[in-house]
Amino acid sequence: MHYQLYYWTGLQGRGEFVRLALEDAGADYTDVAREQGDEVMQSFLEGQQAGARPFAPPFLKAGRLVIAQVANILHYLGPPLALVPESESRRWQALQLQMTLTDLVAEVHDTHHPVASALYYEDQQAEAKRRAEDLRANRLPKFLGYFEQVIEQAGGRHPLREHSYVDLSLFQVMTGLEYMFPKRMRTLSKDLPLLQGLKERVAQRPNIAAYLASERRVAFNTNGIFRHYPELDAA
Amino acid sequence: MHYQLYYWTGLQGRGEFVRLALEDAGADYTDVAREQGDEVMQSFLEGQQAGARPFAPPFLKAGRLVIAQVANILHYLGPPLALVPESESRRWQALQLQMTLTDLVAEVHDTHHPVASALYYEDQQAEAKRRAEDLRANRLPKFLGYFEQVIEQAGGRHPLREHSYVDLSLFQVMTGLEYMFPKRMRTLSKDLPLLQGLKERVAQRPNIAAYLASERRVAFNTNGIFRHYPELDAA
Repeated sequence: MHYQLYYWTGLQGRGEFVRLALEDAGADYTDVAREQGDEVMQSFLEGQQAGARPFAPPFLKAGRLVIAQVANILHYLGPPLALVPESESRRWQALQLQMTLTDLVAEVHDTHHPVASALYYEDQQAEAKRRAEDLRANRLPKFLGYFEQVIEQAGGRHPLREHSYVDLSLFQVMTGLEYMFPKRMRTLSKDLPLLQGLKERVAQRPNIAAYLASERRVAFNTNGIFRHYPELDAA
Repeated sequence: MHYQLYYWTGLQGRGEFVRLALEDAGADYTDVAREQGDEVMQSFLEGQQAGARPFAPPFLKAGRLVIAQVANILHYLGPPLALVPESESRRWQALQLQMTLTDLVAEVHDTHHPVASALYYEDQQAEAKRRAEDLRANRLPKFLGYFEQVIEQAGGRHPLREHSYVDLSLFQVMTGLEYMFPKRMRTLSKDLPLLQGLKERVAQRPNIAAYLASERRVAFNTNGIFRHYPELDAA
């Protein structure tokens, strides 16, 4: 199967969770907007294409199927790309963990945009400072502590006892948070040895290592979800 | 199958999306915390029970399976409760639409809690006013306009051409928003005739009508996701 990924150019964003799965599996895919420009997504978003209408990128075209929402796309790609366990109950758990990561990603995004996505960060900086305090103090320890314990209860290496798309997404979240909050993550990571180990092992997977070293991996920047604004960070 | 639903007592919250599916299908279920108190969820949340550990309520126990995250629970319940179409591609679309509703629900929640879930509304009222302006002006028209168009393209009655759990969740979102933003929804609803029609038809389904008239349906209140604070509303 040839896959077509549609996502905004110039940032990692939510598309990166899908890209990591396609890259890790060595899948045959085109990153369509990078070849043809962001405009190519417009007719899908306006409902002028066949298949389910996406609310927002990323979306994936696989044959006639159009599928949107990161956790949904990964749930779809998991079996053909061998990125999810065989057992039904573990597939439900994978989707559950991925949806919990979706929640965390939304909270991280809203930390620099607590008032409105449509406004500049600079126009909501005061609110962002308050929200970042809460994220650093309460929400990050709660979410990351949860994932640490899930890995621990599954034997210490993978949340699902074997490699899966959830590992790849946890890698992305950990590296993104380390870029966004270097001081805070230095403190928190002392209590997250299993997440640290997982992150390092994912980075060393041959296809992921090759991808991270390639030009296809856009650097973290202040257009994405994980944005480094020093005034929002503290140990 | 006997289902056990676990969710906070005293509010509709995210549990209501699952409750509506169980009620509509006439499923055999226990609303466990309502019988035994909220403490009964603690051992699941702390990872001391068998099965996947939930990050937060609601979660559902079905035999040995423990499953959390609203969209995941509905994706699981859809086939046995006959609340999702048979076709694979429509099941992907159902999950995609439900995840988009999850995003909307998170944005609605964060409108009254833009800084921190752990703080009182009164301690983030200024930020909430700014965020509510954006939700009313931009986000609600965008989300609801999307669902209106999805229903239109599917023939005008159901987003998936037949009754599904997505209809029930759209009913809940529309009634919740009408409670939270009566003025704004009166304006917006003029352009949402299909969502209005869907909402009214769901309310008249026999099992749903009986449920809404029962004591099991907790009234909307200012502990839930949809909260009526008059200062956050405007036409």
